[in-house]
Amino acid sequence: MSDLRKTSVQELLRSTDLDREVLLKGWVRTRRGNKYVQFISVNDGSTIHNIQVVADAEKFSDESLKEITTGSSVAVRGKLVASQGKGQAVEVQAAEIEVYGASDPETYPLQKRGSDQKGISLEELRKIAHMRPRTNTFGAVLRIRHAMSFAIHQYFNANGYFYVHTPIITGSDAEGAGQMFRVTTLPDVNPPLNDAGHVDYKQDFFGKPTNLTVSGQLEGELAAMALGKVYTFGPTFRAENSNTARHLAEFWMVEPEVAFNDLQDNMDLAEDFLRSLVRYALEHCADDLQFLNDQYDKELLNRLKFVTDNEFQRLTYTEAVEILKTARQKFEFPVDWGTDLQSEHERYLVEKHFKKPVILTNYPKEIKAFYMKLDDDGRTVRAMDVLFPGIGEIIGGSQREEDLQKLSTRMQEMHVPEEDLWWYLDTRRFGTAPHAGFGLGFERLILFVTGMTNIRDVIPFPRFPKSAEF
Amino acid sequence: MSDLRKTSVQELLRSTDLDREVLLKGWVRTRRGNKYVQFISVNDGSTIHNIQVVADAEKFSDESLKEITTGSSVAVRGKLVASQGKGQAVEVQAAEIEVYGASDPETYPLQKRGSDQKGISLEELRKIAHMRPRTNTFGAVLRIRHAMSFAIHQYFNANGYFYVHTPIITGSDAEGAGQMFRVTTLPDVNPPLNDAGHVDYKQDFFGKPTNLTVSGQLEGELAAMALGKVYTFGPTFRAENSNTARHLAEFWMVEPEVAFNDLQDNMDLAEDFLRSLVRYALEHCADDLQFLNDQYDKELLNRLKFVTDNEFQRLTYTEAVEILKTARQKFEFPVDWGTDLQSEHERYLVEKHFKKPVILTNYPKEIKAFYMKLDDDGRTVRAMDVLFPGIGEIIGGSQREEDLQKLSTRMQEMHVPEEDLWWYLDTRRFGTAPHAGFGLGFERLILFVTGMTNIRDVIPFPRFPKSAEF
Repeated sequence: MSDLRKTSVQELLRSTDLDREVLLKGWVRTRRGNKYVQFISVNDGSTIHNIQVVADAEKFSDESLKEITTGSSVAVRGKLVASQGKGQAVEVQAAEIEVYGASDPETYPLQKRGSDQKGISLEELRKIAHMRPRTNTFGAVLRIRHAMSFAIHQYFNANGYFYVHTPIITGSDAEGAGQMFRVTTLPDVNPPLNDAGHVDYKQDFFGKPTNLTVSGQLEGELAAMALGKVYTFGPTFRAENSNTARHLAEFWMVEPEVAFNDLQDNMDLAEDFLRSLVRYALEHCADDLQFLNDQYDKELLNRLKFVTDNEFQRLTYTEAVEILKTARQKFEFPVDWGTDLQSEHERYLVEKHFKKPVILTNYPKEIKAFYMKLDDDGRTVRAMDVLFPGIGEIIGGSQREEDLQKLSTRMQEMHVPEEDLWWYLDTRRFGTAPHAGFGLGFERLILFVTGMTNIRDVIPFPRFPKSAEF
Repeated sequence: MSDLRKTSVQELLRSTDLDREVLLKGWVRTRRGNKYVQFISVNDGSTIHNIQVVADAEKFSDESLKEITTGSSVAVRGKLVASQGKGQAVEVQAAEIEVYGASDPETYPLQKRGSDQKGISLEELRKIAHMRPRTNTFGAVLRIRHAMSFAIHQYFNANGYFYVHTPIITGSDAEGAGQMFRVTTLPDVNPPLNDAGHVDYKQDFFGKPTNLTVSGQLEGELAAMALGKVYTFGPTFRAENSNTARHLAEFWMVEPEVAFNDLQDNMDLAEDFLRSLVRYALEHCADDLQFLNDQYDKELLNRLKFVTDNEFQRLTYTEAVEILKTARQKFEFPVDWGTDLQSEHERYLVEKHFKKPVILTNYPKEIKAFYMKLDDDGRTVRAMDVLFPGIGEIIGGSQREEDLQKLSTRMQEMHVPEEDLWWYLDTRRFGTAPHAGFGLGFERLILFVTGMTNIRDVIPFPRFPKSAEF
């Protein structure tokens, strides 16, 4: 079309250098107008905002204009000028428009959604997850998801952490964090059997049964005991038959692990980390957040500021149970020391009682994992859960048991096979040290930051029971 | 030990604020000395360098000093002072030393490696991958791996790309890029069968057969056709029975995809991207690179500068074949138009003929994937491979076929089932546009930047046939 370098819509909208020739490329959101002038809204994904292209109807044939429909892809050469209309500072006076790809209004799945966000429900959009990034809503969610990913890497890099890629395929079913997916290359019928009549995994790809990881923590600990401060950020998997708005079979986890940190340090890290992420979102995703706030959840921005403005309330599980037992609120599930807290309890503490984010610590050992450091009383462990408004648990972590003997005893009590975890125990055998870490469910963070309510709407291609399309 | 905040070894070594009390925590690399004074080298993973702790033997009992062995973990309180010895600017005069975790010299697997890098071979270290990050070599490799990960995210973020998490579990076996791992929750013996006598995958977790992804490209394209500029960075899998120094069953891929880019733009991006990554390594990993250069590969730093200092040579496959056919070198595999180039050919072009990185383009369509854009001659496609010294292909990419009809024809020719990829074809049905992208094998990049020669040594926990330990 010309030798001009293409400029993104975001750059154009921010530009103060007017009356120059520009080239833009993107997808048409709407076209309207009359026989004198046509207004074409173009979006290229760089921002939630469209740029208005003004086409003098006399200069373009009816034929060529007819192709410019919602969803079609175009290149526009023209002059960037101050807009005469309302709603935008600048617009492009088209000199030339090329349509790269048409979009038949009869069949384009997002036809109704051109400018009207109410056109198609979020449920319907889940069925066309390959198209939904073209909507304002999912454009905003995915840009925020990117921004949060980057903020995570930036936070850790700036603070001296090393990113460690822990394995996805794992030979140990050790953590007991949930049902796992089996990974295999054996034939699906009549796999080879061994003498005992069981499947002979010696003949499988890895020479033993393998699964998809449920957490990178144990390997993260290995790395922390060498590099000091590390984090993982990768996919994890649960083969649980949960068809809820809170569960995915495939999701991303962020797991920092720090040598020489104790529970106090761990809480400080979690609080500073979460606060800095939310602050990053407020600073870098203002337009997308404003859109989500206006369209879906008028309390979204307030809730984000609530996190940046309030220190997190820290208390023990035991103290929390006391508060819940004397609460005036009636709970579906009764609370007593030793029971796991339900979402209703967590939200009561955060939203009603303290009215700020809460960190609960020192849970009964029976309801927590084997690797958590035993408190001196022998009843509780140095666990911590960070509870957020609207979300409940957003982070779970602990100081780890660094004492080989105590860890070994806990593993026996909880029937975790030591022979599978010889390498994990080696960290306690050689140069063991206090250390602590936590896991942040990345999609829970995105739920919180975007105000979306279904976890299937904050990951590009959600995996859940009976669904692995795209 | 005290209320002092711990300082990292890296900060201490760079410190100019001397004669103050400091607290450091880390692992002992060596202890030597005499009955008057003991010198303890401590490393905490923050840098390849150790800090020297000087302990007045009179102030510490023999008993307590005996525990300070290679691999033990310690906290040291003391004064940071200018070093009287050679080899370091500062050292710590110990006032107090606490041993967190001992390390029995009789059984510690890295005992021999305290300071002597030749103590244990890389092969042996692979068997103790949970311990090898504690060596200088793997500390350096893992820090560089982190730096390259961060540089990748920073590069794309700064240039307006959005990070997209493409799915790991996939229901389509479409790209044909290689053998896949099956993911299932069906029982391993006697799985349910359907009427036809095949495994009834309707009863599997996702209601159909699923595999681990071989590439995020196709989903990346979906995102690029909405957000404009995207990239993936995630694990990918090949169930190939390759026991070589170049192949892993699980590895990480970086795949940018850009709407409206053509092959030329794609080459410009690949070249700028790779150059900026290598420049980042030279700027941010100087100490680790110097170590690897000195210990393993005296040409490493030269090779890195070779990439930052030379423009990449661009030529077509056809031109390359002409050069190879008239080369004075004898190749094991003969070259003729239409054959795939072997590593020996690629390395000849890079290392002998051009003596600079090379980008080959426009390969015969028969040896490339179905989604690559057909050239006007109908014989070649707009593919590009970036070839690096010592590595061969480090990037493979292409402009994509955006024409629905041409793409459909190519899929039929190559027996790619269209019904499995209805969603991919939708991008060509609605608002199709030129676009291009490529895949960078992240471990290949790390091989290049570190100078390591076995790919199992540049990922923390390598997965390959018969090996999924840790």
